[in-house]
Amino acid sequence: MQKPPTHPPDVGPVTDSERIVQALRERRYKRVRKLLARMHPAKIAALVEALGREERDALWQQVSASMEGRILPHLKAALARQLAADAAERGEPSGSVDTGDSDDSRLSVDAVNQLAAVREAVSEDRLKRVGKLLHRMHPAKVAGLLEALPPSERGVVWSMVETDRAGKVLTYLHDEIRATLARELDPDDLVAAVLPLDLDDLVDLIQQLPNDLSDLLMQATSGARREQVETLLAHPEDSAGGLMDTDFIEVRAEVRIGAVLRYLRLLDTLPSHTDQLMVMDRQGLYQGVLRLSALVTADPTWRVSEVMHTDVAGIALDMPATEVARLFQDHDLLSAPVVDADQRLVGRITVDDVVDLIREDADRALMQMAGLDDEADMFAPVLVSARRRAVWLGINLVTAFLAAWVIGRFEATLEQLVALAVLMPIVASMGGIAGSQTLTLMIRGLALGQIQKGNLRVLLQREMGTSVLNGLLWAAVIALLAVVWFGNWGLGGVLGAAILINLLCAALAGLAIPLLLQRMGIDPALAGSVVLTTVTDVIGFFAFLGLASLWLV
Amino acid sequence: MQKPPTHPPDVGPVTDSERIVQALRERRYKRVRKLLARMHPAKIAALVEALGREERDALWQQVSASMEGRILPHLKAALARQLAADAAERGEPSGSVDTGDSDDSRLSVDAVNQLAAVREAVSEDRLKRVGKLLHRMHPAKVAGLLEALPPSERGVVWSMVETDRAGKVLTYLHDEIRATLARELDPDDLVAAVLPLDLDDLVDLIQQLPNDLSDLLMQATSGARREQVETLLAHPEDSAGGLMDTDFIEVRAEVRIGAVLRYLRLLDTLPSHTDQLMVMDRQGLYQGVLRLSALVTADPTWRVSEVMHTDVAGIALDMPATEVARLFQDHDLLSAPVVDADQRLVGRITVDDVVDLIREDADRALMQMAGLDDEADMFAPVLVSARRRAVWLGINLVTAFLAAWVIGRFEATLEQLVALAVLMPIVASMGGIAGSQTLTLMIRGLALGQIQKGNLRVLLQREMGTSVLNGLLWAAVIALLAVVWFGNWGLGGVLGAAILINLLCAALAGLAIPLLLQRMGIDPALAGSVVLTTVTDVIGFFAFLGLASLWLV
Repeated sequence: MQKPPTHPPDVGPVTDSERIVQALRERRYKRVRKLLARMHPAKIAALVEALGREERDALWQQVSASMEGRILPHLKAALARQLAADAAERGEPSGSVDTGDSDDSRLSVDAVNQLAAVREAVSEDRLKRVGKLLHRMHPAKVAGLLEALPPSERGVVWSMVETDRAGKVLTYLHDEIRATLARELDPDDLVAAVLPLDLDDLVDLIQQLPNDLSDLLMQATSGARREQVETLLAHPEDSAGGLMDTDFIEVRAEVRIGAVLRYLRLLDTLPSHTDQLMVMDRQGLYQGVLRLSALVTADPTWRVSEVMHTDVAGIALDMPATEVARLFQDHDLLSAPVVDADQRLVGRITVDDVVDLIREDADRALMQMAGLDDEADMFAPVLVSARRRAVWLGINLVTAFLAAWVIGRFEATLEQLVALAVLMPIVASMGGIAGSQTLTLMIRGLALGQIQKGNLRVLLQREMGTSVLNGLLWAAVIALLAVVWFGNWGLGGVLGAAILINLLCAALAGLAIPLLLQRMGIDPALAGSVVLTTVTDVIGFFAFLGLASLWLV
Repeated sequence: MQKPPTHPPDVGPVTDSERIVQALRERRYKRVRKLLARMHPAKIAALVEALGREERDALWQQVSASMEGRILPHLKAALARQLAADAAERGEPSGSVDTGDSDDSRLSVDAVNQLAAVREAVSEDRLKRVGKLLHRMHPAKVAGLLEALPPSERGVVWSMVETDRAGKVLTYLHDEIRATLARELDPDDLVAAVLPLDLDDLVDLIQQLPNDLSDLLMQATSGARREQVETLLAHPEDSAGGLMDTDFIEVRAEVRIGAVLRYLRLLDTLPSHTDQLMVMDRQGLYQGVLRLSALVTADPTWRVSEVMHTDVAGIALDMPATEVARLFQDHDLLSAPVVDADQRLVGRITVDDVVDLIREDADRALMQMAGLDDEADMFAPVLVSARRRAVWLGINLVTAFLAAWVIGRFEATLEQLVALAVLMPIVASMGGIAGSQTLTLMIRGLALGQIQKGNLRVLLQREMGTSVLNGLLWAAVIALLAVVWFGNWGLGGVLGAAILINLLCAALAGLAIPLLLQRMGIDPALAGSVVLTTVTDVIGFFAFLGLASLWLV
């Protein structure tokens, strides 16, 4: 564990000017701006004059508009004019960097243009323009932009994100990039960026950042908030408890609507994503929800109990996150109460977190099927990427050698009839495709909870029937093609028989493998397709070459 | 186009009793109940006594609790006692089928037990119990249950779904099953089930049902609603216009909060999923949104313009649905206004539809990669399934024969060194795996909008670097293994070189294929992996056998 130093330890430079020069060289622009902020304008002017053209321009990009005005009088007239002229030439009206606030982060989605504009500005070292572009973007867009940037430019752009928005940006990033960028911040900047976040965002970050950084954040959190964070951290990330936040408003069932309205007006704002208030009885037990839409249409003299909805049962703390997602989807929920074993209200889950969950799950499934980590950086260093992917290639190599070993058993047969070598990939390939169709159907059915003991036999019948039909069809087609190609009826017969056998086994394997993997606690979507390919390769080669050695040679 | 008959045409039976017997045999229980409803209890009693034991039990299952009491007095005492005793034995307290309403559709998710319970009840012909079980389930759960049932039982269970809930159930089903079950309903039942739905659900059904059924529904819709439906139908399904509904509440910017509250109280309820009201100016142009959470915390004397949020820009009618989904996800929206080219408010999109969209897209991507249709019925007839899958197998066959043809070019080489046949699947397999990793990365990057001209070169460098490293590593490992296995240094060298070449080409293909497909307007997730496998197979075999024919024989 490391204690956060107020400023990173400096050994070399001793004066602020020297520190600025070093920070400029290291492209740590946030640090440059911090150092500038505590220097007198005259001193900055002296530094500007002392620097070479290139470093001077880089430094000037970090000077805020309000400060420019105070520095310019201290500069020699020629230099002042030149700096102003440079800015004008670049189309930057001097002194406009801090105008507007995030309210103008309109729902524009010209991501392509944004990326191009930012990269252009970075390549021209026009960092003020980068800052302005970022300032206009929603934090989610900034995160997407950072992930789309090559690492060399990423650090520069990241240093131009305002500290008060950096925390929100971090929440939208994938794990690997998030950890890297969080580490690039000074510890005190990281704390300043993250602590003002909503409770559930803060907890997510603490859960997902590397240990040293999350320790730092935990130490910086104190009092009641620390207790809340610790309570939320106690629940597994993939359970209802891990999804919930504790920002909700409770009302009593026997209170009148008018009183609720008066109470709400005392609050400045409601917690974000409040579509309903939680209703409790005198013992604090969960009773139902009072939707805002019911609240505003109700007569003020009515009681909460008369307009509340009781059809939304509390979600148990330990409900798996995937079930929570399905509940939200099936019931079109915007938020839902979370209760403990005694029906005591402990939190609420909002649909925005569920949307993220669904998207991330889909993303993970896609990436996993290729043995990729969905939290990894697309631009990770080559060595890192290579090492990660090597694992999957290695696993595949074992299965490939298994198939080769099967072929090796029939070397003598192959020597006698080399046409077998030409045709054998067809057997394996058709089996793999047919098997992956059944496998995918099973994986989805299991994910939707639609495949159970009760209907498995029916499904097996259907899949086998489908396989028999397609097996017969394609066996005939392929056998015929082989006969035409090699003019050998026996070869065609063996090939057709092997195709039929492999397609039947592929359907069986496609059904059985996900069930077995699930029982073993392995995600079928992750390992299913490797295991399936191994089975269809081995059976395909064995059936084809085995039959050939029996009948043909 | 067919005109909806009030009752389906009957040719055979002439009396209601005969019609009931026929409907019972056809297991059309909804029709049985309808016929029973218009018969006198004494006549029903006569029918009950005339039937054999099995048909009598089946008929009795369709008699509602309230009617039972009126029929029993007309029956012979022995039979009345027996029917009552049967019910008691089955644990069905006579006369409880219609208690409670859908308010007790609690958020229980014991789908496994529900499916088992329903199937057990169906197998025992205890249809009253089926009805009771269904009645307690949320329509989404009923839909899931229907999809998980084998078709033979599906029809029976479907006939027990109350008409006033059947419409909602239809909205949750996948296309193929939806069409089948909608067709099983009497046309007037279908109309009665669907017309009371929310406008956007109705439009979705009209869009997704087969033409004859959607014509029927359009004819049954009239007046203002018909106009609304036609307006919504005019927008493409996968655009903002296709996602929106027109159920929103508008207020003027200059009105006071107190007046808004009084206006809302005049309404009985707000449209479902109302989290905000839309604010317009005097010309009807969109100004911003008034969140209910802002409404209830605002002082009644304030004006709407003082508390409305203007940071939510209107979504353009023609924004693609995937962009809408990303907007909702990035901005954590619950609902958003849709505007036309003149900034006139035309509709609103709610997050529940976006959640469905995200889930369906993910589902489709998964299924498409195996050449499956995500809207197809898992239990479709074997012939139908076989025909659907045959297409994908046929496409694959072409690529497999292409690979075989490449191998065939080197028959002479293979004849001289049969070990090549043993090892060649390894080359193709490693290339396929490495390529699919790059391909998946690209497909996700394109979907997230993170891959653009600007960063493509950097990505290419990374991927090629990764490929070189992994190529060298695995080429060495595999070459060594081949040397150990076959004691042939040349063979090892050729194998290693072919692996390296194939891994490099695989990375290039993995990058280029999705870009090319996208430019050709083909979904990379659908066709990418077939094209990639073809490339890696062909290059792998060609490199390995080609090098071998040059260096080894």
